[in-house]
Amino acid sequence: MIFMETLQLHLDFVWLILASILVFFMQAGFTALEAGLVRAKNSINVAIKNVSDLLIASVVFALFGFGIMFGDSASGWFGTDLYFFQGLDTDPWNWAFLFFQIVFAGTAATIVSGAIAEGVKFGVYLIGTFFIVLIIYPVFGHWAWGSLLNPDQAGWLEQLGFVDFAGSTVVHSIGGWVALAAAIVVGPRVGKYVDGKVHSMKPSNVVLAALGVFILWLGWFGFNAGSTATGDTSIAQIALNTHLAAAAGGLFAMITSWILFQQPKAEDILNGVLAGLVSVTAGAAVLTPLMALVVGAIGGIIVVFSLIFIDKVWKIDDAIGAISVHGVCGAWGTLAVGLFGTMALLPNETRMEQILVQGLGAAVAFVWGFVLGWIVYKTLGLFMTIRPKKEEEIQGLNVSEHGASIAMVDTIQSMQDIANA
Amino acid sequence: MIFMETLQLHLDFVWLILASILVFFMQAGFTALEAGLVRAKNSINVAIKNVSDLLIASVVFALFGFGIMFGDSASGWFGTDLYFFQGLDTDPWNWAFLFFQIVFAGTAATIVSGAIAEGVKFGVYLIGTFFIVLIIYPVFGHWAWGSLLNPDQAGWLEQLGFVDFAGSTVVHSIGGWVALAAAIVVGPRVGKYVDGKVHSMKPSNVVLAALGVFILWLGWFGFNAGSTATGDTSIAQIALNTHLAAAAGGLFAMITSWILFQQPKAEDILNGVLAGLVSVTAGAAVLTPLMALVVGAIGGIIVVFSLIFIDKVWKIDDAIGAISVHGVCGAWGTLAVGLFGTMALLPNETRMEQILVQGLGAAVAFVWGFVLGWIVYKTLGLFMTIRPKKEEEIQGLNVSEHGASIAMVDTIQSMQDIANA
Amino acid sequence: MIFMETLQLHLDFVWLILASILVFFMQAGFTALEAGLVRAKNSINVAIKNVSDLLIASVVFALFGFGIMFGDSASGWFGTDLYFFQGLDTDPWNWAFLFFQIVFAGTAATIVSGAIAEGVKFGVYLIGTFFIVLIIYPVFGHWAWGSLLNPDQAGWLEQLGFVDFAGSTVVHSIGGWVALAAAIVVGPRVGKYVDGKVHSMKPSNVVLAALGVFILWLGWFGFNAGSTATGDTSIAQIALNTHLAAAAGGLFAMITSWILFQQPKAEDILNGVLAGLVSVTAGAAVLTPLMALVVGAIGGIIVVFSLIFIDKVWKIDDAIGAISVHGVCGAWGTLAVGLFGTMALLPNETRMEQILVQGLGAAVAFVWGFVLGWIVYKTLGLFMTIRPKKEEEIQGLNVSEHGASIAMVDTIQSMQDIANA
Repeated sequence: MIFMETLQLHLDFVWLILASILVFFMQAGFTALEAGLVRAKNSINVAIKNVSDLLIASVVFALFGFGIMFGDSASGWFGTDLYFFQGLDTDPWNWAFLFFQIVFAGTAATIVSGAIAEGVKFGVYLIGTFFIVLIIYPVFGHWAWGSLLNPDQAGWLEQLGFVDFAGSTVVHSIGGWVALAAAIVVGPRVGKYVDGKVHSMKPSNVVLAALGVFILWLGWFGFNAGSTATGDTSIAQIALNTHLAAAAGGLFAMITSWILFQQPKAEDILNGVLAGLVSVTAGAAVLTPLMALVVGAIGGIIVVFSLIFIDKVWKIDDAIGAISVHGVCGAWGTLAVGLFGTMALLPNETRMEQILVQGLGAAVAFVWGFVLGWIVYKTLGLFMTIRPKKEEEIQGLNVSEHGASIAMVDTIQSMQDIANA
Repeated sequence: MIFMETLQLHLDFVWLILASILVFFMQAGFTALEAGLVRAKNSINVAIKNVSDLLIASVVFALFGFGIMFGDSASGWFGTDLYFFQGLDTDPWNWAFLFFQIVFAGTAATIVSGAIAEGVKFGVYLIGTFFIVLIIYPVFGHWAWGSLLNPDQAGWLEQLGFVDFAGSTVVHSIGGWVALAAAIVVGPRVGKYVDGKVHSMKPSNVVLAALGVFILWLGWFGFNAGSTATGDTSIAQIALNTHLAAAAGGLFAMITSWILFQQPKAEDILNGVLAGLVSVTAGAAVLTPLMALVVGAIGGIIVVFSLIFIDKVWKIDDAIGAISVHGVCGAWGTLAVGLFGTMALLPNETRMEQILVQGLGAAVAFVWGFVLGWIVYKTLGLFMTIRPKKEEEIQGLNVSEHGASIAMVDTIQSMQDIANA
Repeated sequence: MIFMETLQLHLDFVWLILASILVFFMQAGFTALEAGLVRAKNSINVAIKNVSDLLIASVVFALFGFGIMFGDSASGWFGTDLYFFQGLDTDPWNWAFLFFQIVFAGTAATIVSGAIAEGVKFGVYLIGTFFIVLIIYPVFGHWAWGSLLNPDQAGWLEQLGFVDFAGSTVVHSIGGWVALAAAIVVGPRVGKYVDGKVHSMKPSNVVLAALGVFILWLGWFGFNAGSTATGDTSIAQIALNTHLAAAAGGLFAMITSWILFQQPKAEDILNGVLAGLVSVTAGAAVLTPLMALVVGAIGGIIVVFSLIFIDKVWKIDDAIGAISVHGVCGAWGTLAVGLFGTMALLPNETRMEQILVQGLGAAVAFVWGFVLGWIVYKTLGLFMTIRPKKEEEIQGLNVSEHGASIAMVDTIQSMQDIANA
């Protein structure tokens, strides 16, 4: 029997490492999505933000955050050891698990980059990332997932029967609510809301954004099906659920957009796919394929209305819609576990109890993510200039932050000057 | 022994799910390829078509098409159950298999988007996709692959010994011939054929198209080597064959192009790679590596001549060459199984018999795909406006279909107006 | 016991094929990186070079180079059989191994394309590639890795205890030093060094380059963790090491750049990630995660200074920094095995001995790669025109080599002519 277990273990390693690699690649998806949805003058800046937050997230989470999330639990509130790789070299599984968790942390962190893509200074953004992966993400992660490495270390939300299979709440909502706080603190872009009128800012490259969505969709298979951490028959349904929810999310966002605007807006379709993916993430392992399709479809409808509401009613300027996609749909997906999940696979005894616990987890994530995100960005504002100067913002962050301009944009600029002269 | 089988099964799940994910990602490849090869004013539209046809294909094929392709066979002609996931939850393998088949159906459907990329309205295209994944693809699929899920359900082409390992005919030719019908019904783009002269339309972004080819090449390893549906030693030769055919296809297309035009045209090299891939798909499991290289090389030569022939002689306007790549090379690859396949691995007793059956299958695919494609698009033309208005087409489908323009293109447009004034 | 071995073998096949696929995809990464870092007028040309060198590398290495690298050894100097697939069909493992080695050879070859991206004719470049994969790469590969297929065939460097796990030297330094030779022979681009002044040439698309870096990073997991050629528990630490070195490389290059230039230059961050990856490649299996992080961080610092030195002091024009990233950091990573590797996992008895052997291997790679690269390009110069004509170079290689222009660039060009008139 020992040999059989060894082979299954080898297969688990192969599966988890490949899943980690897929999740890692989601960073490229975020980069393409965000660079495509912002204006060309900020595209390099946002791409470099996406690269750089992964650099910081990887190093900081590996050295500190991992211990806070999975170390010996202080009464279910946060972990207290495993810093600086201490104690991890006893079992190669720890390396596989650490790698998987690093790329998850990177995902949570990078969600923020989209919302405030065009209006925050590079250095401020990097320090914000530092606090997300050091405290905000791993502490909440400990509450919901603390037992993943050591079954004895269940966090307090877990102990209540909170279910978030692959992170609708832990990763996406947390990222989304920090993004909400950051967007409020940073404020709208120059020219976004003028005299009560809402101006939409044209995306520079929708094709690139579409490729970003495909890359994210690809990586999400690792995100969800990899969260089994074992290569067995369960991965099929999870992968299928993920795919169907994404497709249904995109499809119903398209229909919603077509009805509302008489044209299926490209951004709505793309955000609809992501909404479906975020929505199914919590319940990927406890939904039937038909229910996954329904959950994704509802997510696709929700995201279109949420995008309108946050932009037009609340007048919070989210450059790419990250708050709606990750925050709102993350909460929806978490509730959907209670509403549509297969009861036999859920820890609570009645559906109502499960729904209440799911709601509690989603609410706690909102308070924790939003408040701490607000504190981090407000505090940074006491010591640093958060926003570029107005003329820098108008010129674009590519130049002001990196001295990097796009030859073609430059040429067009000079042409316009000539024409206007 | 039961445990050994369980482990192999787990490995099969891991392999098939990963292969499915790779095939899924081919959609990103088609998106990049097609957006790169069309003109900038239509690039967003074609990208969104590629996203949207996957949404429709996934939902419609999962709920209906899968049953038609793999359900209980009506005398080898079409399947009659398994609709709406009915009866699939008895075995997790069904979920893995369904996922793999969904992404295959998506591939067949999206091939059409390229050929008619710049000249068909969005809504029409989506309805066309609906009929492809509901009827055209799954019915033919049942004839050739009906036994894949249930060995007792062999379709009539299978029963004759027709071999199409991963779908040169079932996926690529079917997609290509529907594209041919659609291109004929839709007609050439404004300005393409004027007074008997053939105008070539400049691709907007060849670099993006090259990335698209690499992504397709990547996904094709899942397409071909995943079609074993089992993780064993056979996947090595299949993957190697796929790679060598792609390389030889590109190389010989480059040489052919260099000889014909004194310059190796970028599009010919890219289409040559795809031609090699399509050509080897039917025989990937029954060709030696040397023969795979030969089959790919011939595919690369064929595609260059086919592109010229269809454009210049037949004057059928295929915006990106999809008919030549998928239709013509799909037929070539299917025949090549008979011509170059290892006889011991083929069901027919003589090479001549195998060649005839291969030819029959390719011919049936042509008739089925072309005629049904023609009927679908002609019928749609009775109820809807298929083509954008001439001024919409000149303005570009990005704006007319999605209200999405590219800031840089807009600026240049206005600059030209100023200059012309 | 036989069945257990069969299952592990199947898992090894799955792992090695997937790793090969990831390495293959690095070509897309190089394409995006190089097309993004050169000027728009050469972007198509460099993308097509990246496609085409893989075509040639795949066919030539499969038919010839593989035998030279892994065939029956002539006293440890080069292999003498296995040409044209002869003798390989006895064991399917040979197909898996051949596929993995083909994509490695493609990587070594394509490194050169970046350095001389904007200044060498297409045909010359292809012939250069031919000699790299026929002689330069496989002969050195035989010295260091000759025993990988047949344990009895250890090359002379291996026999001395030289350790280069996944190819910091064998692949990256060899590619980098050939690139150095090519860059010297080809000479700087028009306008690069004028009257002793160094002009920097603006990259056309940094976002695309960033995506290229993510794709390379993705592929590198296959490159390093796949070099185990077995799916077991060792892959976790290797993948983690790869990730941490990349992150640390990018982070410390960012810090270095920020200090030197008061702004974190986008190209430095991107090259820092690649530097970290190249640096950890030799030692990925013998470094602890902490040491991998350190080795990557140092690589990130080295690359920033190396880029300055080669450009400003030596005045060698390397269009994208390939010599620094692959040549210099490859040598660093090779030395780092001796400096930071876990002694128990290294073949030599003392650290000093190991360092000396590592230094010898790195030095031999420099001499071999540089001298043969120089001979190849110098000899080509005797028979062919290596560089485009000055007016072709100014017009850009997209047009002069492929007749392929970018519509938007054309428009801007004409606008400028109008404005200047």
